[in-house]
Amino acid sequence: MDAYPYPMIQPPPFHWDRSASGDEPSVHQWIQTLDPGQRPTVHGDDWDVTLLGVPLSRSSISASAASENPDAIRRAWRSFIPYHLEEGVDLTPLRVLDLGNVRQHVTDIAQCHQNIRQAVAAMRRHHPQTFPLLLGGDHSVTAMAMKGWKEAHPEHRLGILQLDTHFDLRPLEEHGPSNGTPIRNLIESGTLRGEDVVNIGLHGFFNARSLREYADKTNVRWITLKQARREGVEAVVRRELEALAQRVDAIHFTLDMDVLDVAYAPGVPASTPGGMRTDELFDACLIAGRHTKVTSMDLVCLDPYRDVAGATVKAGVHAMLSFLTGYVQWKGLSPS
Amino acid sequence: MDAYPYPMIQPPPFHWDRSASGDEPSVHQWIQTLDPGQRPTVHGDDWDVTLLGVPLSRSSISASAASENPDAIRRAWRSFIPYHLEEGVDLTPLRVLDLGNVRQHVTDIAQCHQNIRQAVAAMRRHHPQTFPLLLGGDHSVTAMAMKGWKEAHPEHRLGILQLDTHFDLRPLEEHGPSNGTPIRNLIESGTLRGEDVVNIGLHGFFNARSLREYADKTNVRWITLKQARREGVEAVVRRELEALAQRVDAIHFTLDMDVLDVAYAPGVPASTPGGMRTDELFDACLIAGRHTKVTSMDLVCLDPYRDVAGATVKAGVHAMLSFLTGYVQWKGLSPS
Amino acid sequence: MDAYPYPMIQPPPFHWDRSASGDEPSVHQWIQTLDPGQRPTVHGDDWDVTLLGVPLSRSSISASAASENPDAIRRAWRSFIPYHLEEGVDLTPLRVLDLGNVRQHVTDIAQCHQNIRQAVAAMRRHHPQTFPLLLGGDHSVTAMAMKGWKEAHPEHRLGILQLDTHFDLRPLEEHGPSNGTPIRNLIESGTLRGEDVVNIGLHGFFNARSLREYADKTNVRWITLKQARREGVEAVVRRELEALAQRVDAIHFTLDMDVLDVAYAPGVPASTPGGMRTDELFDACLIAGRHTKVTSMDLVCLDPYRDVAGATVKAGVHAMLSFLTGYVQWKGLSPS
Amino acid sequence: MDAYPYPMIQPPPFHWDRSASGDEPSVHQWIQTLDPGQRPTVHGDDWDVTLLGVPLSRSSISASAASENPDAIRRAWRSFIPYHLEEGVDLTPLRVLDLGNVRQHVTDIAQCHQNIRQAVAAMRRHHPQTFPLLLGGDHSVTAMAMKGWKEAHPEHRLGILQLDTHFDLRPLEEHGPSNGTPIRNLIESGTLRGEDVVNIGLHGFFNARSLREYADKTNVRWITLKQARREGVEAVVRRELEALAQRVDAIHFTLDMDVLDVAYAPGVPASTPGGMRTDELFDACLIAGRHTKVTSMDLVCLDPYRDVAGATVKAGVHAMLSFLTGYVQWKGLSPS
Amino acid sequence: MDAYPYPMIQPPPFHWDRSASGDEPSVHQWIQTLDPGQRPTVHGDDWDVTLLGVPLSRSSISASAASENPDAIRRAWRSFIPYHLEEGVDLTPLRVLDLGNVRQHVTDIAQCHQNIRQAVAAMRRHHPQTFPLLLGGDHSVTAMAMKGWKEAHPEHRLGILQLDTHFDLRPLEEHGPSNGTPIRNLIESGTLRGEDVVNIGLHGFFNARSLREYADKTNVRWITLKQARREGVEAVVRRELEALAQRVDAIHFTLDMDVLDVAYAPGVPASTPGGMRTDELFDACLIAGRHTKVTSMDLVCLDPYRDVAGATVKAGVHAMLSFLTGYVQWKGLSPS
Amino acid sequence: MDAYPYPMIQPPPFHWDRSASGDEPSVHQWIQTLDPGQRPTVHGDDWDVTLLGVPLSRSSISASAASENPDAIRRAWRSFIPYHLEEGVDLTPLRVLDLGNVRQHVTDIAQCHQNIRQAVAAMRRHHPQTFPLLLGGDHSVTAMAMKGWKEAHPEHRLGILQLDTHFDLRPLEEHGPSNGTPIRNLIESGTLRGEDVVNIGLHGFFNARSLREYADKTNVRWITLKQARREGVEAVVRRELEALAQRVDAIHFTLDMDVLDVAYAPGVPASTPGGMRTDELFDACLIAGRHTKVTSMDLVCLDPYRDVAGATVKAGVHAMLSFLTGYVQWKGLSPS
Repeated sequence: MDAYPYPMIQPPPFHWDRSASGDEPSVHQWIQTLDPGQRPTVHGDDWDVTLLGVPLSRSSISASAASENPDAIRRAWRSFIPYHLEEGVDLTPLRVLDLGNVRQHVTDIAQCHQNIRQAVAAMRRHHPQTFPLLLGGDHSVTAMAMKGWKEAHPEHRLGILQLDTHFDLRPLEEHGPSNGTPIRNLIESGTLRGEDVVNIGLHGFFNARSLREYADKTNVRWITLKQARREGVEAVVRRELEALAQRVDAIHFTLDMDVLDVAYAPGVPASTPGGMRTDELFDACLIAGRHTKVTSMDLVCLDPYRDVAGATVKAGVHAMLSFLTGYVQWKGLSPS
Repeated sequence: MDAYPYPMIQPPPFHWDRSASGDEPSVHQWIQTLDPGQRPTVHGDDWDVTLLGVPLSRSSISASAASENPDAIRRAWRSFIPYHLEEGVDLTPLRVLDLGNVRQHVTDIAQCHQNIRQAVAAMRRHHPQTFPLLLGGDHSVTAMAMKGWKEAHPEHRLGILQLDTHFDLRPLEEHGPSNGTPIRNLIESGTLRGEDVVNIGLHGFFNARSLREYADKTNVRWITLKQARREGVEAVVRRELEALAQRVDAIHFTLDMDVLDVAYAPGVPASTPGGMRTDELFDACLIAGRHTKVTSMDLVCLDPYRDVAGATVKAGVHAMLSFLTGYVQWKGLSPS
Repeated sequence: MDAYPYPMIQPPPFHWDRSASGDEPSVHQWIQTLDPGQRPTVHGDDWDVTLLGVPLSRSSISASAASENPDAIRRAWRSFIPYHLEEGVDLTPLRVLDLGNVRQHVTDIAQCHQNIRQAVAAMRRHHPQTFPLLLGGDHSVTAMAMKGWKEAHPEHRLGILQLDTHFDLRPLEEHGPSNGTPIRNLIESGTLRGEDVVNIGLHGFFNARSLREYADKTNVRWITLKQARREGVEAVVRRELEALAQRVDAIHFTLDMDVLDVAYAPGVPASTPGGMRTDELFDACLIAGRHTKVTSMDLVCLDPYRDVAGATVKAGVHAMLSFLTGYVQWKGLSPS
Repeated sequence: MDAYPYPMIQPPPFHWDRSASGDEPSVHQWIQTLDPGQRPTVHGDDWDVTLLGVPLSRSSISASAASENPDAIRRAWRSFIPYHLEEGVDLTPLRVLDLGNVRQHVTDIAQCHQNIRQAVAAMRRHHPQTFPLLLGGDHSVTAMAMKGWKEAHPEHRLGILQLDTHFDLRPLEEHGPSNGTPIRNLIESGTLRGEDVVNIGLHGFFNARSLREYADKTNVRWITLKQARREGVEAVVRRELEALAQRVDAIHFTLDMDVLDVAYAPGVPASTPGGMRTDELFDACLIAGRHTKVTSMDLVCLDPYRDVAGATVKAGVHAMLSFLTGYVQWKGLSPS
Repeated sequence: MDAYPYPMIQPPPFHWDRSASGDEPSVHQWIQTLDPGQRPTVHGDDWDVTLLGVPLSRSSISASAASENPDAIRRAWRSFIPYHLEEGVDLTPLRVLDLGNVRQHVTDIAQCHQNIRQAVAAMRRHHPQTFPLLLGGDHSVTAMAMKGWKEAHPEHRLGILQLDTHFDLRPLEEHGPSNGTPIRNLIESGTLRGEDVVNIGLHGFFNARSLREYADKTNVRWITLKQARREGVEAVVRRELEALAQRVDAIHFTLDMDVLDVAYAPGVPASTPGGMRTDELFDACLIAGRHTKVTSMDLVCLDPYRDVAGATVKAGVHAMLSFLTGYVQWKGLSPS
Repeated sequence: MDAYPYPMIQPPPFHWDRSASGDEPSVHQWIQTLDPGQRPTVHGDDWDVTLLGVPLSRSSISASAASENPDAIRRAWRSFIPYHLEEGVDLTPLRVLDLGNVRQHVTDIAQCHQNIRQAVAAMRRHHPQTFPLLLGGDHSVTAMAMKGWKEAHPEHRLGILQLDTHFDLRPLEEHGPSNGTPIRNLIESGTLRGEDVVNIGLHGFFNARSLREYADKTNVRWITLKQARREGVEAVVRRELEALAQRVDAIHFTLDMDVLDVAYAPGVPASTPGGMRTDELFDACLIAGRHTKVTSMDLVCLDPYRDVAGATVKAGVHAMLSFLTGYVQWKGLSPS
């Protein structure tokens, strides 16, 4: 373990047997995990994408087992095929490595957050060619991930594409670095500017008036689900990414699964009626994956203990694969 | 208790602690309940809207725990914010009072029905400026509520806007004053005319041919979900309310939650595949809330014991708040 | 039992009491089952449609209780009315007989398959005027049913309309005559030609690249859900049936319930996020039912043990009734 | 229907196919139901035991779907064999007839109760040799059943053996003829004397002090579960039946399933921690079945909609069969 | 709020309406909560027992919603009667006050722990006559509560009676002040001595060998469930309390609900097969409540989100009431 | 793979990361799996116990997902510690290898059975010092495992200790080599004699009279649960093993999880009320593990898809570990 460049990352808790791979691999036969002995040999240019679990949900305002999401996703991807039929995209040319999980402390949340930050910063320093995809965890993860990025790339002007039912702009003094505050945390720490935040999917009775006022005051760009649907979620994501890319150097894509309607995402404690459908979400992910400036991603707030019929975990895997499909298209890896 | 003007109403079974209210109240910190000592001081012009639970589902044809809905709604609204983001409407200027529940008898359903009737009639007499919003219970509640209104306002020509999968026109002799008969009950008792009923959302294999024939014979206006979707549910509700308002003095809005698709409302025993989506429902509620002549509402047939992931109860609260958002807009209370 | 013309069919395990039928029958009072004593008197022209349960899911690749679907459907149809409101179609003039279940062997799957084949062949020989509607079971049923048909009508060029998330074209040598291979089985056995297969609804990460290549090589026609939605699922089904009918003598309609989104069909182990909605499905079924050349149907892969809120079983019944509504329209049985 | 001697009884809603019976019948192939045409030929001495469903739970204080219990029991008994291994008792010589259900009114509970009373009285008059076994419904059923018996046999001094967590002695004026009051109803109506009530299994925090005082004042005999366990539940039931039989002519055995621990009976809304185990219950039922003076039985308060893993419904069937095993032993029908 | 002597305690989030109390109160009509205005008037000798919720489970090693337990218990006690039938004990002479919840911080677990400590210390200082009963939360709560007590009574030699499947002696350096370490925390901080710990109920494969060795080295007294059952759980608790009372001044009773078998406590993530039955637990609680030196209690690790059929929450309320029954007996409040 | 000595065995589908093992391993850090590269180096004397998954439940009479049990057990054992507290036994000196799963065919059950037989025979031939422990799968597995043993050791007189609710003696001609027939299969194939079968735990209404007669005719020894409880399950198992060991060379221990009460084993489709408790089962397993002549074991009929609160899977792991504890004691590996 010592030789491994990321001291605060643990290997994934389990490894799929990949020896049985036939002609048609499932996702678990495509995504690789490092064997202990192999670790020192990792090189940045060996991998296109690295997955990183962040099993932290102690920092969630309401009780959550989003900490169990990384393993739930790893278990569920066995039922998916790395070939996107509509797009005709084969994902297997993409070299994806599951690095494992950021180490967490049982009772020291600040330490957990510090580890996430350092893990991302170290990843950027050691393997800057690799796309980091974080599997949270609650939404506090996002603030730490972007701070880690900023630490490694202080010169970057950072933007964020957020799919969310909430602003996540609650005051830090009251709610701490929890899942209610990550965007405010980023703005107030100077990691990014309000105007470089684009939040799509807000709706209903889940955001206080004061948060909207804060958003408007700090120039956070927000598009409600209703507005987005008028134009088409896909089109809005495309347009907003274009506009954002004019201003910033790197865009982080944060997917709070509570953007989904509770009928589609029963396994997200904060999911709501009137939310996004999964087909809209997958289109959005595909567009985001295709964009040159989207250089990191996280998927948060999925609590597999609350899931029903596996629907939400399946949606999580599908969203991740949709993003990667776009990424393959951008990289030109699949002729289709 | 004696001094309270509504002898057949009991205070709500529980009260949220509202002392912790900060700058951003949740719904439970906005909606008020009366303390026992305060009761005699209620004045009609103190409140814009009064909520009234009707914990009755003994009168349901099939087994139902819709009697538990009022308390389920009260518990769930704690997770909602009285600010509607898309509309930019702050609900807190609206003065909403949770009066409690209509008293029910364990084995005498006729007495239960009589109490509902008297409760509504008394509310109209004592506080005619206040909008009554009933939380059922099963759909038999609607017939009693409208009869109570008619008792207080015999001069009113009443109309009804019904969102429902069913006609609720079954013969009274066979099914009694149950949840299968309320509209027929109202027509046959002369409380309203068939032509003043507008039912939107019917679909599929859930209504007998004879009921359709009865509807047509009595000039009940009905629009299937498929028809409504062609034009847009929102637009249809708006148009139908306009037309109805030409004829009647007061419109009761009855929301049978079984209008929703079973994927969106697992907690409604009679919900069906092929039904309405929650986003369509919330739009309809908003439009109804905005209309001058809509002067009372009920929400029925939600059985929280059957709910999955809290989806249906959340949808119930959201529908109620969507209606109140429209109501605030109509009252001009929120500058937006 | 011996006198019964179909030796490999058992009567339905239970019979609804139909004596209580009033003016408005429910589906269980309309669909008939044969009493033991009555059996020898069955004549082909007595019945328009015969239902046949196929309680087989041992042949499913993943663990499934789809074998329990026929009885689940029979229990659930009690809550449906044989009158389709939007279409104004009364189903009761249609004479529907529930023949019972194909006999299954506990450990000899080949025998089970042989029984299905023989049951369908015998039905075609004894009662060629009757429309057979099979309630699976897993998707391996389809290959056997169509082979049985071909045995009875060797002169027929057969087509298939498939609603499915998958190609079901996996190699037979690896997966046997399971639910992953029925279409390939039919093609490779010469029962039908690849070009006479139309598969609508495929999407996402659930089909290997090699299967798509096999489909293209054998001229299987496939339309993804995304493509179908652009034109409208209903319109696409209509157009594809027209085209197919030009070429073939008889079209089998196979409905794999996994075409539905997991939010709508939690009770299908392989249902996925991003799938079809039930309203789209019901439209497709209605169109298929109306088509002259659609002469048989099956409904497969519904596992009632995994269902949530009864949603999937209700959807199964509704799909079947939607198909029959179209069938009534085609037969001109309902003036409406 | 008219010729049937019991006008307020409807045939069972469904009939199992019994033609497939091999050498080893399951319970559904042993218990018979009448075909419509056969009904007028029923004679009292044709049957040893008649089952009678009472699908009534509108009269339950708390929301309950115990009305669904009769059908749930009928469905579940298919998985049971009419042979009791420990006792070596073959049940099949016992002639058991499922008569169907007592007709219920949707909104008139008094009428429902009247029907139960009349159904039992008619059964006693037409077929006095037959043992009636009622499947409730809620516990209000018991008061009506015993009143019906008393009507048919005014000369009988009646006793009751009650297995229950509660006294069911709540005041009638407050709770009506509901599931909280049946024993008090029987005492105050003079149907039986307090001293002829034996209640076994009470425990914990589920009975008010005033109810205990009422019990003591009226000489109701009650044995807590803790007391019963000291001596053995089986032994206590035996002893108490002996003592009761000295005084009365006929003993009704009422089994309120809430006597069971919630771990064993999740499907009883009022089941509690610290309750009876199923093995204790089955022993008690066996002893009761063996006693000459036990001449009727009911099983109440089982809500199958709340069941988990089918545990409670299975326990209900097992309790009924355990009772019948004792009954066979008493009748000397099984040599063992 | 400021005037209230416990600054780190918030009022309970909701209050039951107690005005409807008739002759036979339920628990929610007996246990009182303070109205905001009343608070300053609290005096220590007004109350026999104060309840204190500790909604903290961020400090749990595995994901847990034990933070939701206090409110779940408060909701569920409405279905319990404050009269213990077997013991003939009326609880209502006991004056019980629900003080509310210890304030928690979203991300600073050390602050949460500090608040618990201070809350208990303040309670001891202001109202030393009152028995504090804490509703956790996870088991880390226990260490904080006892440290708070020690702070207020530094002269006390403290003992602990622990019902638990685990030692809770994991090393602090590795697991922090979490639910795996409270007893070790207490020993190593000098709050109590190993020999003054009595742990009853351990069993199976849930404790590492090294923990047993630590227990033995520090003279922790531990009795496995198997050993306890040989003598009787009740007798063992009595004997151990007697022995412990010889040595210490005050005994804290900590009930980790994971001592229960998973069949009885599905709502405890760490509950195990082979554990304690609820009847054994309730006996143990009664004995503990009767003992003079047992002067405080907590109930921890109950996660209501995982509960099935309400069984575990019901068991939690019943355990608490059983303890209070013993307490009433000790106080001589109920003549019985 | 070819070099692996067992051609019909596949490696386990997933491997736990064992590198993080600290001082106190969990079960997943103690039980080993072979890395692909290591396989050829397996030697019989390297391992005391080999685990072998048998993911087969197509051969179950009723629908079952017992095929998913091996992986469910593998996932769940992560929460167990290889130290048995009551016995003071450390399991880690025992060298346990998880060999993986017997290959299964999707549609050819006879081939599946053949593979099991060959797998066990090969294990006996290559590594006769190793104890094989099979994780089923349904109960048909047992017949195949014992036939495989007999093939390898034709000279052995075999005995079987069966914990079961059923005889599993149904006629082969009717039910095939399914989970209803394994013991009859073994007797009729001459693999063992009826008198060398000991079945403990039968009870209730789950075995036909004819099966009991067959058992008696073939001298199968059977002890009902009630009989066993009189003497104590532990004592009966000890005594019966002693008697059986006098006659036979090797005893196979087959644990059908349906022996458990449904309250303890909701995840076994055929579990029943009135069954064994888990504490009784674990005692029985411990005794069986200690016996010299018990040389193989299987655990069958656990369907993790039906489990509730993980109770049944936890019970399965605990039963396996209890057996291994006895095995360690017999081997003298743990000084305790």
